[in-house]
Amino acid sequence: MIVATVEIHVREDKIDEFIKIIVDNHRESVKEPGNLRFDVLQSIEDPSRFTLYEAYETEEASAAHKKTPHYLKWRELAENMMAKPRKGTAHRVIAPQEKSMWR
Amino acid sequence: MIVATVEIHVREDKIDEFIKIIVDNHRESVKEPGNLRFDVLQSIEDPSRFTLYEAYETEEASAAHKKTPHYLKWRELAENMMAKPRKGTAHRVIAPQEKSMWR
Repeated sequence: MIVATVEIHVREDKIDEFIKIIVDNHRESVKEPGNLRFDVLQSIEDPSRFTLYEAYETEEASAAHKKTPHYLKWRELAENMMAKPRKGTAHRVIAPQEKSMWR
Repeated sequence: MIVATVEIHVREDKIDEFIKIIVDNHRESVKEPGNLRFDVLQSIEDPSRFTLYEAYETEEASAAHKKTPHYLKWRELAENMMAKPRKGTAHRVIAPQEKSMWR
C-alpha cells in the first residue's frame, strides 16, 4: 500500500470553483483499479487550504492515476486556481496493515 | 465528520521506538466510539517524518480522544522522541460524504 498526501493552497476567489473540480476528480479516482481512498479535506481554520489523501494498493496503481483523463483534466483546470505550487508526499503505511481496514 | 492530520518529525535515533508507541496508540484509538480511522503513515523520502490521519464522526468524539489513557500515555512517551513540536490541523470533509466510505 502507498498513500500520497497533497497539500493545496487555493486562491481565495477560486475556492468554490476548486471544490467543484476536485469533487469531479474524486468521483472518477475512486473508480480506478487499485484505489483504496481518495479523500478531499478542507482546513477548518483556513478554508483556502485543502488536503488530498490518496491511498492505492500499489505504487504502480498510484502512478497510473497521474495518467488518467480525469487527473490530467483536473491538473489543467486547477493550475490557475492555486495560490502556490501544491506539495505532494508519498508515504508507506505503518498502521492499519489489514487491507480490510482500507476499503 | 472531522479529520485531524498530525505531522510529526521524530528524532533519527528514536524512529523504531516511536513506531512501537504510535502503533500501540493506533490499536486503542480505533476502538473509540466515533472513531472512523486512525492511520499512521511514514514518509518514504524522509523516514523521520510521520503523518497521523484521525477521522471521527463528530467534533466531540475527536476531542474525547485527547482525554483517553492511551492518548495521554502516548503523548508523554512521544514527548522526548520528537525533533520539533508536532503540527495538527483540523479539516472538514468535502468528499466522500457517504459515511459507508469511512468504515
